[in-house]
Order: sequence, then C-alpha cells, then structure tokens
Amino acid sequence: MELLSKIATNDGHGENSAFFDGWKAYDSDPYHPTKNPNGVIQMGLAENQAVARFMEKVRGNRVRFDPARIVMSGGATGAQETLAFCLADPGDALLVPAPYYPGNDRDLTWRTGIQLLPVICHSSNDFKITRQALETAYKKAQDSNIKVKGLLLNNPSNPLGTVLNRDTLTESLKFTNDKKIHLICDEIYSATVFARPDFISIAEILQENNECDRDLIHIVYSLSKDLGFPGFRVGIIYSYNDSVVNCARKMSSFGLVSTQTQHLIASMLSDDVFVDRFLSESAKRLGQRHKILSRGLSQVGIGSLKSNAGLYCWMDLRRLLKGPTFESEIELWRVIINDVKINVSPGASFHCSEPGWFRVCFANMDDETVMVALNRIHKFVIQTKGSSSDGINRKQYGRSKLEISLSFRRLDEIMMAPHKMSPHSPMSSPLVRART
Amino acid sequence: MELLSKIATNDGHGENSAFFDGWKAYDSDPYHPTKNPNGVIQMGLAENQAVARFMEKVRGNRVRFDPARIVMSGGATGAQETLAFCLADPGDALLVPAPYYPGNDRDLTWRTGIQLLPVICHSSNDFKITRQALETAYKKAQDSNIKVKGLLLNNPSNPLGTVLNRDTLTESLKFTNDKKIHLICDEIYSATVFARPDFISIAEILQENNECDRDLIHIVYSLSKDLGFPGFRVGIIYSYNDSVVNCARKMSSFGLVSTQTQHLIASMLSDDVFVDRFLSESAKRLGQRHKILSRGLSQVGIGSLKSNAGLYCWMDLRRLLKGPTFESEIELWRVIINDVKINVSPGASFHCSEPGWFRVCFANMDDETVMVALNRIHKFVIQTKGSSSDGINRKQYGRSKLEISLSFRRLDEIMMAPHKMSPHSPMSSPLVRART
Repeated sequence: MELLSKIATNDGHGENSAFFDGWKAYDSDPYHPTKNPNGVIQMGLAENQAVARFMEKVRGNRVRFDPARIVMSGGATGAQETLAFCLADPGDALLVPAPYYPGNDRDLTWRTGIQLLPVICHSSNDFKITRQALETAYKKAQDSNIKVKGLLLNNPSNPLGTVLNRDTLTESLKFTNDKKIHLICDEIYSATVFARPDFISIAEILQENNECDRDLIHIVYSLSKDLGFPGFRVGIIYSYNDSVVNCARKMSSFGLVSTQTQHLIASMLSDDVFVDRFLSESAKRLGQRHKILSRGLSQVGIGSLKSNAGLYCWMDLRRLLKGPTFESEIELWRVIINDVKINVSPGASFHCSEPGWFRVCFANMDDETVMVALNRIHKFVIQTKGSSSDGINRKQYGRSKLEISLSFRRLDEIMMAPHKMSPHSPMSSPLVRART
Repeated sequence: MELLSKIATNDGHGENSAFFDGWKAYDSDPYHPTKNPNGVIQMGLAENQAVARFMEKVRGNRVRFDPARIVMSGGATGAQETLAFCLADPGDALLVPAPYYPGNDRDLTWRTGIQLLPVICHSSNDFKITRQALETAYKKAQDSNIKVKGLLLNNPSNPLGTVLNRDTLTESLKFTNDKKIHLICDEIYSATVFARPDFISIAEILQENNECDRDLIHIVYSLSKDLGFPGFRVGIIYSYNDSVVNCARKMSSFGLVSTQTQHLIASMLSDDVFVDRFLSESAKRLGQRHKILSRGLSQVGIGSLKSNAGLYCWMDLRRLLKGPTFESEIELWRVIINDVKINVSPGASFHCSEPGWFRVCFANMDDETVMVALNRIHKFVIQTKGSSSDGINRKQYGRSKLEISLSFRRLDEIMMAPHKMSPHSPMSSPLVRART
C-alpha cells in the first residue's frame, strides 16, 4: 500500500517547473547580518519557534517539538483537510473512535472524497478505545474492500471531555504501527485540561517507543481552543514524516495565516509570563465552571461522563428518552432547543452508538447565563418527570423570552480580547462557529 | 450537463445534520439595538461592504456589487480552488487563454483533479483572444471526450500586462453563454492599470447584456496585488450564482481571513480619502516604473508587448534564441538566471505557444535596483550580440557579486507598510511568493 496519496506524490503542486527554479535559486540565498545582508529573512521561523515552544509548555515540557516540522494552515479545519489530502486517496478511509466531532465529516471528507469509519465505543467502559474495537472496525472495512489509511484520535476528546490514558495511546500506536497505517492525533484541546489525570501527547508516547515508524505519526493542533483564537485561523500540522511536511507546506498556500496575525501570535506566544498565567488561569476557570455545571445537573439527577478537559461535558439523558432509539433522542432534542431554548447537541450527530447522550458547552458564557441555563434544565427535568407516560409533554413548556445559546460568543469580543478563554466566532458558516 | 460539481451539490458540507440545526435556529436571531440587543452581530457584513465599495471604485463606479454575493477566502489561491471545487468534477476542464499564470495549474487543478486546457493565442495579433481560438480549444476538448465546464479569463492579464477590450469580453461572454459553460474572470490586477485604455470588468459587460445567464458568471478578486497585501490572504469570490455563493461560503471555512485582518481591512477600505490617494499614487508610480523599464529595454533593441497594467512586462527575446525552440528558451533563461543573475520567468512556464518570451516584474524593487538590472541586461545583450554564432557565450559572463531578484520583497516590509504597492511575501512556499 502506498503510504501517501496520489496528490501528495504527483507533480500537481507545479513547483518542478522552470518558473519556480528561479524562486528556488533565490531560496538558496538566506539572510545573514554581515555575510549576506541582502539575503532572505525567514520570518516564518520565529513564529514556528514560538508555536513549538507553546506546544511543549502545554505538554509540561516533557517533549520537544522541531519548529521545522510545523506547518501553519487555515485553522484546524484546513489542517485536517490538508492531512487528508496528503495521506489518502478518494475512497480510502480513516478510522475514528465514535462519538466524534461532527465537523470531521466535512473537514476530512467533503472535498477530499475519503471516508471516515467509526470505531464503536460504549458507555459501559466510559467510551474507551479498545484494541478489540479498533480491530473490529478495521476488519469491517477490509470485508467491504475499503482501504484504511489511518486512525484519527482526538485527545482530549470532543465531545467526551476526557483525555486518553497512556495504555490507550500505546495500544493505538501499536495498532497503527502493526497495520502500517497513519496515526493522526488531533490535540486541539490539549490546554483545556483542568484536572487530573494530566494530558499525555502522542509525542510523549513516541519518545518512549523507539521501534515504531515515525513516518506514520502526525499531530493536528490549533490556537482556537487552547487560546480562544478561533477567528485568527491558526491551524497547525506537526508531522514526523518529511514528505508530509513538504507536501503540507505546499498545500498551506490554500489557507495561510495572515502575516499580521502571525506577527501578533509570535509576540504573544514569546511572552512566557503571559502564557504561563493564561494557561493556569484558563484551567482554573474551566474547572470551576465544569464543577458548577456538573453539580447543577446532578442535583436534578442528570449524570454526565466523568471528564477533566474540554469546553463541554457529555450529558446522559437516557432516562428522559421515550425509548432507547435515535428517534426519541431527536424528539427530546427538539423539545430542548425549541421549548427549553438551550442549544445542546444530540449524540447522534457525534456518531454515538447509544441514544440519549448530549454535548453541553459550558465555557463560552458568563456566570449568570449558566445559572439561567441550569434553572431551565431543572424546571424541564422536574416537569418532564411529572408529565404523562409518553415521557415528554411539550405543552407544559411555554417559550421563555430570553433565548440563550450554550455556545455563543460575539465576534467583537474575540477580536478585542483574544486572550479570553471562550472560543467562538460567528463567522460565515455555522460549522465554523460550531467547531467546539 | 450539470452546472455545478458533485461536491457542490452533495451533502458533504454536513450542515444538514441536526447538530447544525441548533446553530441555524440561532442564526435566525439577528442583532437589533433596541428590539433584540442580545442578538448576533454580523460583523462580516461591514467588511464585505467595504470590499464591494472598493471593487466598485476600482471599476470607476460604473458597476454595483452586492456585498451579499461576496465570499472571502484565503487569498486568490484559495478563491480559485474553491471555485474549481464548486464548478467542476475531477476530469472536467476549464479553458484558459495562454500565456497564463503558472500558479493556475496548481491552484485550480492539484487537489481538485480538474484540468486546464490552453486557448492558444499568438504574438501576431498581440495575443488577443479570438472566438476562433476559443472554438478550436473547445472542439479539441470535445474530440478528446473532455467535458469543458468553463472559461477562465485573466483581466488584466498576467503575464501580458494588457487589459481585455470590450469586444473580447463581449465575445467571450457570448461564447460561454452559447456553450452553457461558466465564465470565471480573474480580476486581481484590476487596480494596476496605469494608462489607457481603462480597465473594463466583466461586471460592466454583464450590465449591458441582459440575455446572458448570470448563473454562469463568477469573479475572482484579491487585495494582494491591487493593495499590496499578499500576506493578509484576502481572496474574494464574487458570484452571480446563488448556489455558488452558498457553497463557496461553506468552503470558506478551509481558508478564512483572520478576524484581526478583517477588522483592519474594513477600517482601511472605508477610508475613502486613503483609498483614492492610494489608487492614483499607485497607478502613477507603476506607470513611471513601466516607462523606465520599457525604454531601458528598447535602448538595447529589446522589445516588449505594449502593455498598460500589471506589475510586469512581457519581454521579447526571440532574437536572442539559438533557434525557435523551447530548448533554446530554457537555455537562454539559464544564462539569464545564473550569469546575468536576474530572476525573470520563461514563457514556457506560462504555457506560451511561441518560444522567446519572458516575464519581467518591475514593481517590487527600488529605483536603484531597477537600474542595476537594466545595466546587467544591457551588458548581456551587447555581449551576446558580439559572441559566437551559437548566439550565447556563457564564458563571457562572470557571476557578479550582487544577486538580485526582480520579484522580491521582505515580509517585514509588507507587514509594516501594507499600503506600499509592491506585492510579494516570502511565505512558506515559493508559489506563494511567485503569485505575480
């Protein structure tokens, strides 16, 4: 099996033409203050160094990242698509443990023509990724004659809010290495971990495993979640594979980061005091908010998956379903969005295999709004419990005046306060806003 | 024939899932200062209005642009690819009059899988696009069973530096309308016209032609050339087709403009006095520089195509070729880049059908450097004329110490002086820099 895609290995990037030889001749003329003062000044590097340093910091300085392996691209959205274009041909597949972020379906498959195949995880073991589940998904693909090119892990997980432990990461790495397929780790929530256990990056596992093929390992990162910069469109590909770095860098032209924003980011991330304070304050506030929400829910008997990361929690409303079906789930969800007027996301949209789970975002609103939201949930649950045998009595819930969204931030807030921790931008497409 | 691509008409964007219904419910809650003070503030609009107004100004205020039809994307690079994804399926083709900008091959075809077919133009009529040439290219595609989905015009032309006249535009529009194929007009150099005749946008022709199908017309624009902002990655798709606007807006998530940069652009473009002064000053300076270069060339008997736009001119070195072949052209080019040490681009890379033409960029350097470059060219031409019968005697030309590039600007200059007129950014890929 070819390791990379046809697009990654063909000449379509055009840089092998004579036109670009001129530019390359020019590339061989790097700036030096005395020896070559007229040479090219590589400003991208400063930014990549700042980003590498920041990524190391978020990982407790237990790993090192090489700035030369960093490719910047238009948000994690662009980074994911770029990797898909590099690694797989149309029709090929990536395995993705479910539940997973719905945007993946668009980001990775829409224009690339590849497909995502779910690795089914269950609530019975807290949605852990097991070797068994991976093998089952892989075999199912093989039985359908679908070429599996990789496994996409999301760590910390959106929507679960959990981190992958050492065993899961090691086992996943062993699995992909055995099958000679790629391992893509989406670590865009790495700095949202607000409680133990600590976040473990695949980079850390890799340091401990010298036998595995590093050409198969790629990390997707972004500043949208960890720093609350979704509008800045800073996505990052960190690949251990030289060809992928090369190809992704060429593709980055389709979604480069604005130089103005590059400049701002380089200055900001180089400020160690600011970064340290931001990271600890952000974790503290996320932890507080998470506590308020999960306690508020449990007061009316609503459980949620034990979590320690992310800007959301994974709420268990199975008890409120008419029946254990996705029809019941969507029916319950319609009541929640139309009558309770809270924008939570149904598990089905995350490809969850069990109906009744909902993702609730808690980070991007003020304290008063959280209380309004919790009060509405309380009222709703109490009314539902007391309603007729069909479980839900819509007529009991009049529309309240104040419509709130559990995932909302104004664009001007993002622009004016880039260091705030809430991460949503009402950009052109709902999907952009929805990337949480 | 389907008007749009499979990607444009399938559900791969994912926004038809329940997950996004929640976001859409929320979209229906627009901000109003008194009636709905908590509603969504649509800041994108201010920017689109500023851009629309700027585009009108560049076109002498003879046309109107609807801000709702503007889709921002990551540079013209991203805009071109997005349009290709929207309009054509893998294997389909767009006709492109040659010579044309080499980056098109990458931007439009690399990841989309479509192909570009040249419309052969000749020096005998100053590379005009004729109905005959269009029909010939179209027929050739049909004979090869290739589905032609559109015609891509570049106006003003890169590399020719000429504008399309009213007849050519009208005839091209008639051609595409007759064939029921798309007409994409790349107008990214529209504000670089420094002498008569004036620039005529396809938008103007469209106002005069009520019978043609507007769903087939799309404009690509950018601030990289007209304002010298390549690093800001502001590309623009203006489509008269609602479905394309819709689809392109969804795809824009892969290469959105940084909110910080959006904010800056909206402020800058809203400043009428600045914009007016910039446009007139830029045209004046480009005209002066063009005069210096073309006169300098003609002093040593080098001709160039009569031009009135762009940041380059189309230099005729056919007399210096060993023979009328592309081998001779590349041989001559190697001497120019390695010995004369000037980075010009050979016509073959622009798919020119006649060997011996070279593109020379003149805008992005200071006056002294232009003189150094002209002196080198003078010396080279005189030496070549006096050399042996094979036309070129490499040994005569030692390497000079100062290597200059005719298309070079430092990143920090772009960032610090965004209103300067020279437009090059040494970003990650040579192609990005090379987009002139």
